[in-house]
Amino acid sequence: MSKARKFVIASLFKGEPKVDDFSIEKEELPSLKNGQILCQAEYISVDPYQRVYTHKVGATMIGPQVARIVESRSPEYPVGRHVVASLGWRDQTVISVVPTDGDTLPPVLVPDYGDLPLSLALGVLGMPGATAYFGLLDICHPKPGEVVVVSGAAGAVGSIVGQIARIKGCKVIGIAGSDLKVKWLKEELGFDHAFNYKTVNVEKALKEAAPNGVDVYFDNVGGEQSSAVVANMRHRGRISVCGCISTYNATKVAMAPVVQMHMVRKELKMEGFMVTRWVDQWDKAFKEMAQWIKEGKLKYRETVTEGFENTPDAFIGMLRGENLGKAVVKV
Amino acid sequence: MSKARKFVIASLFKGEPKVDDFSIEKEELPSLKNGQILCQAEYISVDPYQRVYTHKVGATMIGPQVARIVESRSPEYPVGRHVVASLGWRDQTVISVVPTDGDTLPPVLVPDYGDLPLSLALGVLGMPGATAYFGLLDICHPKPGEVVVVSGAAGAVGSIVGQIARIKGCKVIGIAGSDLKVKWLKEELGFDHAFNYKTVNVEKALKEAAPNGVDVYFDNVGGEQSSAVVANMRHRGRISVCGCISTYNATKVAMAPVVQMHMVRKELKMEGFMVTRWVDQWDKAFKEMAQWIKEGKLKYRETVTEGFENTPDAFIGMLRGENLGKAVVKV
Repeated sequence: MSKARKFVIASLFKGEPKVDDFSIEKEELPSLKNGQILCQAEYISVDPYQRVYTHKVGATMIGPQVARIVESRSPEYPVGRHVVASLGWRDQTVISVVPTDGDTLPPVLVPDYGDLPLSLALGVLGMPGATAYFGLLDICHPKPGEVVVVSGAAGAVGSIVGQIARIKGCKVIGIAGSDLKVKWLKEELGFDHAFNYKTVNVEKALKEAAPNGVDVYFDNVGGEQSSAVVANMRHRGRISVCGCISTYNATKVAMAPVVQMHMVRKELKMEGFMVTRWVDQWDKAFKEMAQWIKEGKLKYRETVTEGFENTPDAFIGMLRGENLGKAVVKV
Repeated sequence: MSKARKFVIASLFKGEPKVDDFSIEKEELPSLKNGQILCQAEYISVDPYQRVYTHKVGATMIGPQVARIVESRSPEYPVGRHVVASLGWRDQTVISVVPTDGDTLPPVLVPDYGDLPLSLALGVLGMPGATAYFGLLDICHPKPGEVVVVSGAAGAVGSIVGQIARIKGCKVIGIAGSDLKVKWLKEELGFDHAFNYKTVNVEKALKEAAPNGVDVYFDNVGGEQSSAVVANMRHRGRISVCGCISTYNATKVAMAPVVQMHMVRKELKMEGFMVTRWVDQWDKAFKEMAQWIKEGKLKYRETVTEGFENTPDAFIGMLRGENLGKAVVKV
């Protein structure tokens, strides 16, 4: 029997989470029953939404990981293969391959994507990639020549959204939070325009980059930035709301300019979504995106933090926007 | 030749419009050419959206009216019949029955609705009625048993929205701005719940009236009230944004609690619209609503101001929410 480690919430976050808000607990792992596997975490995903589901002291931090199967009592899940599963911030976990808890998704064997790294199953070929793919294509239906704006553009989701929009023939404008990110979006990812919302006036920059208005807005941040984009949309524009990062660390009710006036005058459509809506179709998206990666049309970047014990730092840094592309922890 | 009168903007509105912001101008009417008619206003419509399209000193106030044809050089538009047309705040107008300006809709002959008053062509059997009908049914697709909230519930549009939702088997909650309106909604229009947002906490009242959340929100007001409703919606709820009255008189950027967080977590859909989108189907809606009126299922109320010269008072009072149902001016 080995001792496994997991991160739990030591104290509820006030505003930005601090390293001391987390603590490591050790737990005895049970021996395997039939239909169970022992997973050894290799990569743990840190994502913005994890900030939102942290309401209880003592609760284990949530999130998916890529894990190697190190023991198995399930023939479909042999030792040595890798799974992606929602195991939280744990280094070793025993799970049933057919979950007994109806709320839990079963572990998924990571398919063979050739030379591509396993960690992509947490990024472009995982939940963030599916989020970008379906949130853009199924909610906004971008057409060639249309203007697409994405906020949080240098993040795991935003960086993929912008590139898919480019592949679909759109003009793409990215909004990000540092000059380094802006440079990356324009010079490496082929965004037509990008700007740093911390140093420019968003409305003014948008008017310059898209003088005839915005057709599609993929919104990762919410709040004031989003009000500025909504105010600059074109008639019958579509807005996909993926996240609201700007408010996750807020300690009081976040306020922003009212959007309804623009919604009416431009007859805009805004829809929020959770990517689990399309879980039956994720495979299709991953196949297409893996192909785009091989063809050089879709690029990805990972910001990798080394060491299980540094997971909170990776999480806090990601919430601060210190990552380019997908933030992961290499255990 | 008669002298016609019209209201123009004497000075741009600062906040709430004042009577002095309007002035009457007289104009010589031309003699009729072929294909033209002379319209004598009988009812002029005052509506919230007119507040929004007033940007120029000297411009004639816009809006539809029901007018009697008093001279005609068009056989399809005989003297004595009535038309509904966007003639603005004028008492007499010469127009072409086939507009030469592509932006203008042609005048429409008011059909024979039996005993129903002509002024309904500005209300339940006019643009506000169509707005309620299509904005609710085509955008929100309410299902029997669902909970529908309407703001501006005692206005020309809101009062019809709530009743259509009742006809469709929904549970209806109205938000209005006076106790008199609340009483009218509950006791005469059959709303299941109604409350005065000026005297109760909207979120608390909603939680009591709809403990399991709101499925459909028909939004006439925008701003803080709408943020409170959005925060209390159920998974996959639909929001139809018809207007943003709460901000029309604002003198600085109106702020409200950020809605995107709720849009994501509940996977909500919000769509703004202009009722002209369905102009080809208005007739169908009016026939159905006229039938509902005859069957006693759909009630209407008009707040009538007498006298052309009092049109600004009617407009200002309507913006203050002093009307029950449709506000019109009897010329």
